Amino acid sequence: MRYAVIMAGGTGTRFWPESREDLPKQLLKLGSDKTLLALTLDRIAPLIPAEQALIVTGDVIVDKIAASAPSVPAQNLLSEPLRRNTAPCVALAAKVLHDRDPQAVITVLAADHLIQKEELFREIIDSAMTLAEKEDVLITLGIKPGYPETGYGYIEAGEEAGKVNDTPYHQVAAFHEKPDTATAQDYFDSGRFFWNSGMFVFKASALLAATEKHLPDLYQALQKVDGNDSPAQLKLSIDEMYPNLEAISIDIGIMEKAENIIVFPADIGWSDVGSWTTLRDLFPHDEQGNVAVGNHIFHQAESNTVFARDGIVVALGVEDLIIVHTPDATLVARRDDAQEVKKIYDELEKMGLDKYK
Amino acid sequence: MRYAVIMAGGTGTRFWPESREDLPKQLLKLGSDKTLLALTLDRIAPLIPAEQALIVTGDVIVDKIAASAPSVPAQNLLSEPLRRNTAPCVALAAKVLHDRDPQAVITVLAADHLIQKEELFREIIDSAMTLAEKEDVLITLGIKPGYPETGYGYIEAGEEAGKVNDTPYHQVAAFHEKPDTATAQDYFDSGRFFWNSGMFVFKASALLAATEKHLPDLYQALQKVDGNDSPAQLKLSIDEMYPNLEAISIDIGIMEKAENIIVFPADIGWSDVGSWTTLRDLFPHDEQGNVAVGNHIFHQAESNTVFARDGIVVALGVEDLIIVHTPDATLVARRDDAQEVKKIYDELEKMGLDKYK
Repeated sequence: MRYAVIMAGGTGTRFWPESREDLPKQLLKLGSDKTLLALTLDRIAPLIPAEQALIVTGDVIVDKIAASAPSVPAQNLLSEPLRRNTAPCVALAAKVLHDRDPQAVITVLAADHLIQKEELFREIIDSAMTLAEKEDVLITLGIKPGYPETGYGYIEAGEEAGKVNDTPYHQVAAFHEKPDTATAQDYFDSGRFFWNSGMFVFKASALLAATEKHLPDLYQALQKVDGNDSPAQLKLSIDEMYPNLEAISIDIGIMEKAENIIVFPADIGWSDVGSWTTLRDLFPHDEQGNVAVGNHIFHQAESNTVFARDGIVVALGVEDLIIVHTPDATLVARRDDAQEVKKIYDELEKMGLDKYK
Repeated sequence: MRYAVIMAGGTGTRFWPESREDLPKQLLKLGSDKTLLALTLDRIAPLIPAEQALIVTGDVIVDKIAASAPSVPAQNLLSEPLRRNTAPCVALAAKVLHDRDPQAVITVLAADHLIQKEELFREIIDSAMTLAEKEDVLITLGIKPGYPETGYGYIEAGEEAGKVNDTPYHQVAAFHEKPDTATAQDYFDSGRFFWNSGMFVFKASALLAATEKHLPDLYQALQKVDGNDSPAQLKLSIDEMYPNLEAISIDIGIMEKAENIIVFPADIGWSDVGSWTTLRDLFPHDEQGNVAVGNHIFHQAESNTVFARDGIVVALGVEDLIIVHTPDATLVARRDDAQEVKKIYDELEKMGLDKYK
């Protein structure tokens, strides 16, 4: 049977003050009345109902995750005691689902991304799952770049390897780390390079076989977990195993080493919603280039990005700012400093202002 | 006996969002744990105790004014049903106090100003009251200009007319409206021009005599008010009289026409706290020129003015901004646009966002 594995352990420090330590990005309502997590479940639901979704998250936020995903069964909510990057997370999910259903085919999705072309997204996932059901391949979705981004890893596609329902797929020639500006431009111009979005499709058994080969310690540790245990027993096993695991991403730990890798190019209007600046691409601009979510008044204000889900922001004579209002905290940043937002957490700690973290 | 009349009817639209329609400037805690009204009462208290203070305010805020001035007797709290500028306000207070004490000498003070040199302020008021007890003069305090401000009216001092306790005073040669930049510079350079701060000292009887002469309609209307009535009856009389009064300032209606006018020069660190920008002069700057009240984090931020009494403001890479955080509203304005803040009220009304007014 088909399953969706939703990775929902992120901390989303770049959306302070809307996001907090116990309220990461996947739990935010960024311009919709649903959380990014709920939107992720809705998006895949026509293909994979919530009963076959499995969420992996962290202890600090597990209760809020459960509340935001009430249709996901309790036994499908796994919680990590600490963060060990994506390889342990995905391999754990594969082990649990494989224990319950040895034929399980899974699609791995992030809980905090947005996708504008939802039907096309589902068509591609459907095609990829159809291929994965037939062949022991590890499939990654490659996002067609909209511009030469330097902040993502890239997947270099090789020869076209076939089609499923008119959806073409390719061998993967190579994975590439985040490029410099010139290299990113070359990648963009070539047409053969795709953003590594962290969405995957494979048989649980195929992923476990690759884990055994490339991350044998992780594979060994996972043998102490039984997906058919009670949720309480399962949690005990996870808590015992996790502290000893190596923190490593599925890309570096498995995908870049495996040989049976396939990429499905996907031009699906994908965004990882990486910072407040990203919101500019997701919402309409006014004539002065301002983007606003929530109540606002602009007076001689240009090209600002304003977020005020509770309350109002008034901007007079300012430009190129990010302004975020929450009841207990306001952020005002130059648009170019959107990436600096994550550093605020350290400052808050230094100043004994942990209550705002 | 000596009395203080505190004019506390202002609306203070320039301090939005900290000030609101029902929370004007005199009720704000601007960097102190007391309201400007409470600070005003404290400042004069060594000279005139709260029992001899009389507050004139407006119906919309009278309850909050009473709560902020619990030591002022109920019978000394007068409330206007609508605003009629300062001449009716001051003449009403003089009539009420004169009815109760025909020898009353009063000092008129604004409830929403700050004064840094409090002892000197009291020395000057004491000297002025001593003079007013002896002579039927109308005394105004003239603030020594710190710079050529164009936003205030000026008092031109004539010959020195005498001294009280070593405090010199002058005849007033003329009152002048708000000057243009060049004229303000001339005023400033001359040393004979003082800011008209709206602080006065006179016998109640002298002010009433001047009112009879220069604003006879107002004087006539006031005869229907009896300061010895019960507070409830007094309020009825005020409510009946007020709608028919002409709105006119004490400066234009009386002071500029009267002949027995004296000015006491006062170099007392006075501020009318006219806008958010004014706060820059009242609080210390950090090395980057930022001024902040409340929790804040600055990162590559220069010359900003931040006010966050409840909560925190984080400013990244921005300069010359006014940033004010309140639980339901945030203002971000270029420092030069501080005066534009008062226009926000119209915008809020237009947009149906009256709840933020």
